[in-house]
Amino acid sequence: MSWTAALQEALKDGLGQRVSLASGDLAGHAHDEGVPFTSTPGAVVFAQSEADIVATLAVAREFGIPVTPWGAGTSLEGAVLPAPGGISLDLGALDSISDLDPVGFTVRVGPGVRRVALNRRLRPHGLFFPVDPGADATLGGMAATNASGTTTVRYGGMRENVMTLRVALMDGRVLDLGSLARKSSSGYALKQLLIGSEGTLGVITSLTLRLHPLPPATVSAQLAFPDLAAAVSASVALRGLGLTPERLEFVDADTVAAVNRHRARHDPELPTLWVELAGRDTADAEAGLSLLREVATDTGGQVVGEARTPEAQGNLWAARHGVYDALRAAWPGHATRIGDICVPLSALAETVAFMTRTLAQHSLTAPLVGHIGDGNLHLLMHAPPEDAGAWARIDHALHDIALYALSVGGTCTGEHGVGLRKRVYMREEHGEALDLMRDIKTLFDPQNLLNPGKVVGELD
Amino acid sequence: MSWTAALQEALKDGLGQRVSLASGDLAGHAHDEGVPFTSTPGAVVFAQSEADIVATLAVAREFGIPVTPWGAGTSLEGAVLPAPGGISLDLGALDSISDLDPVGFTVRVGPGVRRVALNRRLRPHGLFFPVDPGADATLGGMAATNASGTTTVRYGGMRENVMTLRVALMDGRVLDLGSLARKSSSGYALKQLLIGSEGTLGVITSLTLRLHPLPPATVSAQLAFPDLAAAVSASVALRGLGLTPERLEFVDADTVAAVNRHRARHDPELPTLWVELAGRDTADAEAGLSLLREVATDTGGQVVGEARTPEAQGNLWAARHGVYDALRAAWPGHATRIGDICVPLSALAETVAFMTRTLAQHSLTAPLVGHIGDGNLHLLMHAPPEDAGAWARIDHALHDIALYALSVGGTCTGEHGVGLRKRVYMREEHGEALDLMRDIKTLFDPQNLLNPGKVVGELD
Repeated sequence: MSWTAALQEALKDGLGQRVSLASGDLAGHAHDEGVPFTSTPGAVVFAQSEADIVATLAVAREFGIPVTPWGAGTSLEGAVLPAPGGISLDLGALDSISDLDPVGFTVRVGPGVRRVALNRRLRPHGLFFPVDPGADATLGGMAATNASGTTTVRYGGMRENVMTLRVALMDGRVLDLGSLARKSSSGYALKQLLIGSEGTLGVITSLTLRLHPLPPATVSAQLAFPDLAAAVSASVALRGLGLTPERLEFVDADTVAAVNRHRARHDPELPTLWVELAGRDTADAEAGLSLLREVATDTGGQVVGEARTPEAQGNLWAARHGVYDALRAAWPGHATRIGDICVPLSALAETVAFMTRTLAQHSLTAPLVGHIGDGNLHLLMHAPPEDAGAWARIDHALHDIALYALSVGGTCTGEHGVGLRKRVYMREEHGEALDLMRDIKTLFDPQNLLNPGKVVGELD
Repeated sequence: MSWTAALQEALKDGLGQRVSLASGDLAGHAHDEGVPFTSTPGAVVFAQSEADIVATLAVAREFGIPVTPWGAGTSLEGAVLPAPGGISLDLGALDSISDLDPVGFTVRVGPGVRRVALNRRLRPHGLFFPVDPGADATLGGMAATNASGTTTVRYGGMRENVMTLRVALMDGRVLDLGSLARKSSSGYALKQLLIGSEGTLGVITSLTLRLHPLPPATVSAQLAFPDLAAAVSASVALRGLGLTPERLEFVDADTVAAVNRHRARHDPELPTLWVELAGRDTADAEAGLSLLREVATDTGGQVVGEARTPEAQGNLWAARHGVYDALRAAWPGHATRIGDICVPLSALAETVAFMTRTLAQHSLTAPLVGHIGDGNLHLLMHAPPEDAGAWARIDHALHDIALYALSVGGTCTGEHGVGLRKRVYMREEHGEALDLMRDIKTLFDPQNLLNPGKVVGELD
């Protein structure tokens, strides 16, 4: 990458003050929230408009400079790390929210709109956008990663909730993909191809989202089980009884114990499920809760907490949401690396058993949390940043676990994406389909300038 | 297409008795259920295995002969019409059902398995596959068309309910796409690209489907409204109250009248909704029904029928399901052509008003039925097969309506696919994205032998 005077001049010509070479801006775009190393861009473009995106791609094409889109920097697998010396294309300022349609249940957003701000705007209309990956990510980044989270068991992830994408391609075209109709059988699903492509095929310049009505009433319950298999049985039984929870979250016994210590709580230190049920009204939600109590009893578990008001629900869920803080308190100074696999529901119990054995083999401990209705499991690995031996063991354990997920028909990433770090599993997971993915990458980006090396890139 | 001795020999070499050149077999694969003209293949291959599919594609490649996959022949836009003299690749015998996983909620099927047979096998397990396009289509054909139908408002269409696809490519590769995990952020969404590609990118050799528990209890209601706008308001209000119907179907007033005449019924001849609600138990379903009654009153409608037992529900839904028969009885000897557009919910009422005006302008009458929760509208156009003037008016009206759907942000096909007949809308609907679709077609099938001319093909 050579930042010649001609390149700088071309960028500034089209983009003026939106181009920054200031060291603080470069450093701020040199890392994400998951990968320990940094990769410093040569410039940051703070796009204010779609035209700025197109202009940036044109300069990149002319000078052969890589471009990596940047949302909120909350990726965990290196998806937003720039190519060293390349351009970090910051889309955060493209944060308009418009065209709210309360009858069609849609809203249009810029790629830089953040999830929490969007839901604040939607709430007075009785609507919300359900996809909740935890981080206050941008909607553009969430679409690019096919993000999902706690509510996916009920509402699906980004793939099911993006109606349209407007995408700038490397060759200068700007395409509108999808439609405002709730379904279509018209043409190839390019929108779906772009969702989850992590900025390697095009840059999202705006998107239309599918909204949902806020549930009229909700209740939450916390359930303790003798083992994970019982918790899985309970979640399957719930579905058979016609209950689809809004959220269905799992935490292992050791983690409940850690949160108890951190928050001075006294929750039973057993494998624990948190369930949120919605209803037409309070009575309906309560009826769901009674059924949930029966299911717990039938599967050897017990309800250890119930909550109805927003405050009580906040308190009940605190133990689930407090996992990360408890980890930080228990291991001050440790860095974390979050594992993310997804397996068939029928393989959940054996997968957790494998995880437990693998951690023990490598002398590791790590909180386990799971979006159990989807089969999506996270291990919160942690060690002192400088403890190379511990990180090697962590890498080894996560590697074994990813391969195990593939061996039972699952995937190496349920929701965090591939980025740089999970490229190593692409051949094992996709076989010869990886070659076709690479052909598609070449079709969209023949110079390999758009977030190069990510997802389907060759290993270094 | 030249059926040289060498070509015949090559096919018979690999496929023996599974190759038919019998005129009855050729004629049986020369038409679908929607397009009035026929296109006769040069041979039919009755595949018995994936190896037969691969062998057929190899011969096609060697001799430059087009291949069009065939499921049950129920397509409506010409998707299964063979290239004249090409091979019709009949997948109907690939009808195995295996790997039923009642915990993971999945089952593996051959592409030739039919929807009704699958649900018969699933019922004893308390499970079902919800996608219901009406016709007893094959699951392979449904995936290839991204089919949907009456239950899509609740469960999604094929796109949301196919977990894995195994696909034979034109170049001889057989790829496994997707995984048994309920979600994934791993790699490009090739599975989604294949769904809805109507056999133009690859041939589906097997697929894994996402299953759902049969609802413990259901009730159905029939509601009459003064106009469609009121019916739309009711359906939006239902969702705001936390009710997601299993089915939500609309029929216009004239059509109710036609069914009344045909079946000696006395249903109010008004715009009518049929709603099916599920519940945890009978009381729960009844509570939903009471809310539905309130919604009807609030929006100016009335409940005109309720049904609880399977028999009563069958009778209640008969008026909805009797539309096609009533049409045939009212217009004996007429052929039909079914329009299929999908629009944003907020544009439904104006779209139906446009349809009504357009029919009147062209001196046509046609029953209107809609999957109203999805914004998907069908007009059942009909005329004597030989009445060229009427068919020209029908073509004109459907053309105006398709363009109208696009003008309000909708799609030219909600669920029937593009086939031959809707290619004319691809440029208007997809703009420059159509060029990219064509590039993808060339990447998968450089010789243009796989169902050539369909979906993204140039107009003749």
